Amino acid sequence: MTKIPPGLLPEGLSDRLPPQAEASARLVRHVIDTVSSHGYQRVMPPLAEFEQNLVARLQSARAQDLLRVVDPLSQRTMALRPDMTAQIGRIAATRLASAARPLRLCYGGPVIKLRANQLRPEREMMQVGAELIGTDSVAAAVEIVTVAIEALTVAGLSGITVDFTLPDLIDTLAAEEFPLGSDEITAVRSALDAKDAGALAALGTGPAAYLPLIEATGPFHAAMDKLDALDAGGVLKSRTKALREIAKPIGWDVTLTLDPTERHGFEYQTWFGFSLFAEGFVGEVGRGGTYMIAHPDGQQESAIGFSLYPDPLIDAGLGGKVAKRLFLPLGHDPKRAADLRKEGWRTVAALSGSDDAAALGCSHILEGKEPRAL
Amino acid sequence: MTKIPPGLLPEGLSDRLPPQAEASARLVRHVIDTVSSHGYQRVMPPLAEFEQNLVARLQSARAQDLLRVVDPLSQRTMALRPDMTAQIGRIAATRLASAARPLRLCYGGPVIKLRANQLRPEREMMQVGAELIGTDSVAAAVEIVTVAIEALTVAGLSGITVDFTLPDLIDTLAAEEFPLGSDEITAVRSALDAKDAGALAALGTGPAAYLPLIEATGPFHAAMDKLDALDAGGVLKSRTKALREIAKPIGWDVTLTLDPTERHGFEYQTWFGFSLFAEGFVGEVGRGGTYMIAHPDGQQESAIGFSLYPDPLIDAGLGGKVAKRLFLPLGHDPKRAADLRKEGWRTVAALSGSDDAAALGCSHILEGKEPRAL
Repeated sequence: MTKIPPGLLPEGLSDRLPPQAEASARLVRHVIDTVSSHGYQRVMPPLAEFEQNLVARLQSARAQDLLRVVDPLSQRTMALRPDMTAQIGRIAATRLASAARPLRLCYGGPVIKLRANQLRPEREMMQVGAELIGTDSVAAAVEIVTVAIEALTVAGLSGITVDFTLPDLIDTLAAEEFPLGSDEITAVRSALDAKDAGALAALGTGPAAYLPLIEATGPFHAAMDKLDALDAGGVLKSRTKALREIAKPIGWDVTLTLDPTERHGFEYQTWFGFSLFAEGFVGEVGRGGTYMIAHPDGQQESAIGFSLYPDPLIDAGLGGKVAKRLFLPLGHDPKRAADLRKEGWRTVAALSGSDDAAALGCSHILEGKEPRAL
Repeated sequence: MTKIPPGLLPEGLSDRLPPQAEASARLVRHVIDTVSSHGYQRVMPPLAEFEQNLVARLQSARAQDLLRVVDPLSQRTMALRPDMTAQIGRIAATRLASAARPLRLCYGGPVIKLRANQLRPEREMMQVGAELIGTDSVAAAVEIVTVAIEALTVAGLSGITVDFTLPDLIDTLAAEEFPLGSDEITAVRSALDAKDAGALAALGTGPAAYLPLIEATGPFHAAMDKLDALDAGGVLKSRTKALREIAKPIGWDVTLTLDPTERHGFEYQTWFGFSLFAEGFVGEVGRGGTYMIAHPDGQQESAIGFSLYPDPLIDAGLGGKVAKRLFLPLGHDPKRAADLRKEGWRTVAALSGSDDAAALGCSHILEGKEPRAL
């Protein structure tokens, strides 16, 4: 067996060093504190579960994403969690099945995947979020979207964009207003995913009715008007009304867009989904939507929630806060040092005469009773 | 494949539900905040590493504790971390090898083991701690022990006991003052571990010289006097002087004991080790000591640190804090609700007329502008 260099980590796994590790913890803390203030109670599911049960509930991750291991105790295959929402669903449907609804739960912790992909080279990442279980009403969607925006704002993000989508839009239209064969539905979806008007038109007169959807994209109100214009029969009426109600309380400082046919990552969502973006970040910083939770008795329960993946934010410098570091020379007054720590100083005590305040990252040194800038 | 009940988790893995999950997060936060205030900077190593590198640095965990998985990218065996100190050692010896010393690092996160044992039925647990790298001086030991006690106190523990040990005591004595054959050393260790005076006496005159060590145990000052009495030749002088210096700044409210031959779990420690106990908890709540970190160039670097395992504390109700939960009826004033959240209230907004404030765990309801107790 060749020797692996002692500092080498497997591809996609990495250390967070100071100050990024603290920034990461602070970001998660901000999000958890924000959602907790809205009554979401924390749960901490384990890192691993029986693969069978985890796969049955996977939403944003897929079965092929799982890092598996045989459990020596049960001889069953366990899997590391690639996503925490599946675990929250399990908890809601089993241990908290009889807790009062709506049930508000939040979570934050590492998730790990078998392979990285090109967009996300990390195999391990932090996930933090909130789930509202027992309803997917417009009022629930209003709460989840506003709490998600508040959490991002408290975390220090600006230039936030929320992009709404209607995951079951094609199914709804195909069932009534613009009938499609089942083979046509797939082709129409692909053409809409690619925003390929030519391909859509080439599919025939049925599919061509979906052409206006390609234009019903972009700034929210204009795109909504186009969606209304398409919907002469009114089958989308309840959905468009709902989207407008969800949009209403969102502040002017948040950009609202609509991409009604966006399905990527929303395959498990029911009627409503949204992506969160922020200035300075390529790709989404979080996402959410409505979905169903399967109970052991066969019942399905509606739910809505959102997840944030704070790692890219940390890499961009968010969550950082320069703490004042105070060097305590040999023979310093320990009571004064304790008082200064209570005031928010971080102290670094000399352990020998050769400890170097500046090299240890200190901005100040304690002289007598007072900190002096270095 | 038989179906696994949908709510079943693998043995030794469990969910933390409200309010224990929040209590767990709060305890970890208290410990991290305390050690951070003393200049320890957070690092976040990954959940998994190459098995080969992890095993080379394991201290409190053993190779047979590892939950292993083949990495599909490198075709190498990875292992989930059973302990974070091995990872901190790797970081100190590689990525932070040229950072100024003494290097103060802290960490907190889940660790996971292949099997539970009878004492610890959990396979996954939280570990939180601090490491001081580049020195194992008395000054370093004073800092680590006092910071560990402060962290436990801030976390809400009382009736704290610190038990000191001298992991290399037998080796030191056997090398000079009370010579032993190499086969005798093992037998003497076992007899001392069992505090079995009869077995020790039966080993012969060489081993019998170690008999007084069995009595040099218990309340610190009395046990230290017995250790001094044994050490006519003075080979333990530097160690006993060091222990007394470490003991000096420890407050009267902490009980100090000595168990100089205690080795269980201290196999990798160099000259000093300590266990932390607290009123109301069976078994230790944490431990620490001096050790060596291997650098890739073959150098060994001294270090000292401590780890706490907060899970039993949470089960005992520590870290819990009853937050005031305020029900916001339909049509409430959202600005007033936001102000109350800023004051520390947790709000639970009604989403429909049927939401039940009491069932949702609320202690108060917002009436007009003011919370009223339910």
